[in-house]
Amino acid sequence: MSDERYERGLKKLKEIDGRAGERAIEGLRDIAPDLARYTIEFPFGDIYSRPGLDLKSREIATVAALTALGNAVPQLKVHINGALNVGCTREEIIEVILQMAVYAGFPAALNGMFAAKDVFRERDEK
Amino acid sequence: MSDERYERGLKKLKEIDGRAGERAIEGLRDIAPDLARYTIEFPFGDIYSRPGLDLKSREIATVAALTALGNAVPQLKVHINGALNVGCTREEIIEVILQMAVYAGFPAALNGMFAAKDVFRERDEK
Amino acid sequence: MSDERYERGLKKLKEIDGRAGERAIEGLRDIAPDLARYTIEFPFGDIYSRPGLDLKSREIATVAALTALGNAVPQLKVHINGALNVGCTREEIIEVILQMAVYAGFPAALNGMFAAKDVFRERDEK
Amino acid sequence: MSDERYERGLKKLKEIDGRAGERAIEGLRDIAPDLARYTIEFPFGDIYSRPGLDLKSREIATVAALTALGNAVPQLKVHINGALNVGCTREEIIEVILQMAVYAGFPAALNGMFAAKDVFRERDEK
Amino acid sequence: MSDERYERGLKKLKEIDGRAGERAIEGLRDIAPDLARYTIEFPFGDIYSRPGLDLKSREIATVAALTALGNAVPQLKVHINGALNVGCTREEIIEVILQMAVYAGFPAALNGMFAAKDVFRERDEK
Amino acid sequence: MSDERYERGLKKLKEIDGRAGERAIEGLRDIAPDLARYTIEFPFGDIYSRPGLDLKSREIATVAALTALGNAVPQLKVHINGALNVGCTREEIIEVILQMAVYAGFPAALNGMFAAKDVFRERDEK
Repeated sequence: MSDERYERGLKKLKEIDGRAGERAIEGLRDIAPDLARYTIEFPFGDIYSRPGLDLKSREIATVAALTALGNAVPQLKVHINGALNVGCTREEIIEVILQMAVYAGFPAALNGMFAAKDVFRERDEK
Repeated sequence: MSDERYERGLKKLKEIDGRAGERAIEGLRDIAPDLARYTIEFPFGDIYSRPGLDLKSREIATVAALTALGNAVPQLKVHINGALNVGCTREEIIEVILQMAVYAGFPAALNGMFAAKDVFRERDEK
Repeated sequence: MSDERYERGLKKLKEIDGRAGERAIEGLRDIAPDLARYTIEFPFGDIYSRPGLDLKSREIATVAALTALGNAVPQLKVHINGALNVGCTREEIIEVILQMAVYAGFPAALNGMFAAKDVFRERDEK
Repeated sequence: MSDERYERGLKKLKEIDGRAGERAIEGLRDIAPDLARYTIEFPFGDIYSRPGLDLKSREIATVAALTALGNAVPQLKVHINGALNVGCTREEIIEVILQMAVYAGFPAALNGMFAAKDVFRERDEK
Repeated sequence: MSDERYERGLKKLKEIDGRAGERAIEGLRDIAPDLARYTIEFPFGDIYSRPGLDLKSREIATVAALTALGNAVPQLKVHINGALNVGCTREEIIEVILQMAVYAGFPAALNGMFAAKDVFRERDEK
Repeated sequence: MSDERYERGLKKLKEIDGRAGERAIEGLRDIAPDLARYTIEFPFGDIYSRPGLDLKSREIATVAALTALGNAVPQLKVHINGALNVGCTREEIIEVILQMAVYAGFPAALNGMFAAKDVFRERDEK
């Protein structure tokens, strides 16, 4: 049943994002609790829980896509954190973002890099 | 000198794309030979030749970004081929494209998947 | 369970798109059957099955978004058909697409309108 | 004459946006008064004044498109207000934004929802 | 009055695009005659008729934007023709498109260049 | 050699952006010094240093593209400054941004204009 997807998704979300992902979704609870639930069920309960691609590669794909799209900085930061949490090195993340200069242009890569800089600094301050 | 970047880029392009990448760039030779040259020098001579991220992860990032952007099907096909050439399995490519439903919507994922279907069929026919 | 979402989604997909939506998804069965299943479960089983917004308004929203994004013509055509199937008039669809000139520019509106022209002609020929 | 379009547009803008739309345009008066004028004449004097689609459906289309495009938060907020002013319920707006997860991805829907949350709170505080 | 904008726009459209622009718009006459009219009135009657920027610079701006957006190839071709008609050289157009590799990525620049190649060949064949 | 491209790029960057461009790139030095170097080498050392299109036209193309893409406000501001530095008038920049209403929609043009307003004010305050 749906609860199974939700439970699986919540566990996966915590594995990837720790508390940060949950906090992002909590902001939806009062206005759109169903979007909060779907965000746990579909991306995390269905997709990130699939076999066939390791979590590190999944986070590389997501950091690449969000850097290229360039219109979702908060989510990009969540997934830069997520990438670090599942085993990517800072150097690998920097390489992924840098590579986006080729596919989405230099401004997208620059803005992605400034997002990474913020995330790295926040983690260093803890 | 620049020739060094060009030679390194051409070698990397062949490693990743075999003949397909070269053919794509040949179409530029009569109209914009410098764009053909830059496409070898910067993406392949500079970026894909960098240490810090393995080629398989680089191709995962590129397939993700081009699926999400959704406006560059010919280049997406070149890089689905490239991903297979550097060691990604078909299953891994399918997972990357499928995951883009979360970040760029279902139409982007569907259209990326149809591009993969074309590439897989072309390879099977050879 | 998941089967319930799938059954509800399939029924909703048929209500909106008739055979056209199913055909589009059938093309995925051999390469990515899970994406086919998700496309029925999440958009149609979860979202279009929700109360709170009538189907006609849902299709207006989708035609608007796909016209504005401009990179998913096959899906736009499916939903122009869907909009007609759930009670939108041709005039209403034309108005939605025309309005996108304001938000996404004239090329997006022109290309959306040519998609509508194709759909209307195909329906007239039947 | 042009004055007629301007007068019709200004009236329509006030009907939809109340004072908020006017204020947004006032910020243009010193730098680009003609863009301020065009913004009243074409979108509001020409498009929103057309018959063939009710204002509520027009605002649903605009909220959908701006959520999906994801790069125009100030304008999205103006039109979430506009949608409420012409008769959409909060629930309907939430449904439109939520649905964009399907067509433009979850980050676009999440960011649209946070814009709606801001607008609803501002209205509650008045 | 509106007729004045239309007449001015039609004259400007012919100056820029010759017969090609008119033909593009004729395809709209049966399905959305008002969009055909707006496309003449606002872009050509209002914007391209403005003083303050020469037509050659206006076409450079449009070729740049349509190459970068990457989702409007038919309109890009119309404006590559337009740029040539108002005095841009082929070399200048190639430079504008090539430069977009920096701002929108290499795929956008490559696809823009292939559009230019098509336009140049069509003109050579006449 | 590469140093030649870097030196040529740095000189061109200073010619176009004065100190502002350098400062933007300095923010990258600690996190991704190679992206800082590439940003000088490829856009400025390779592209802006090319003959075939004057710098004023190059900046018009860039302001147009960044306004249309709408997801890179910091870079748009750098290039509005750059356009002024290489000889564009404020009126010409306003015309370029205004024209983007046609190709990328009114929100993109409005947000571009507010960026220009910020830049003009900052320059007036000096």
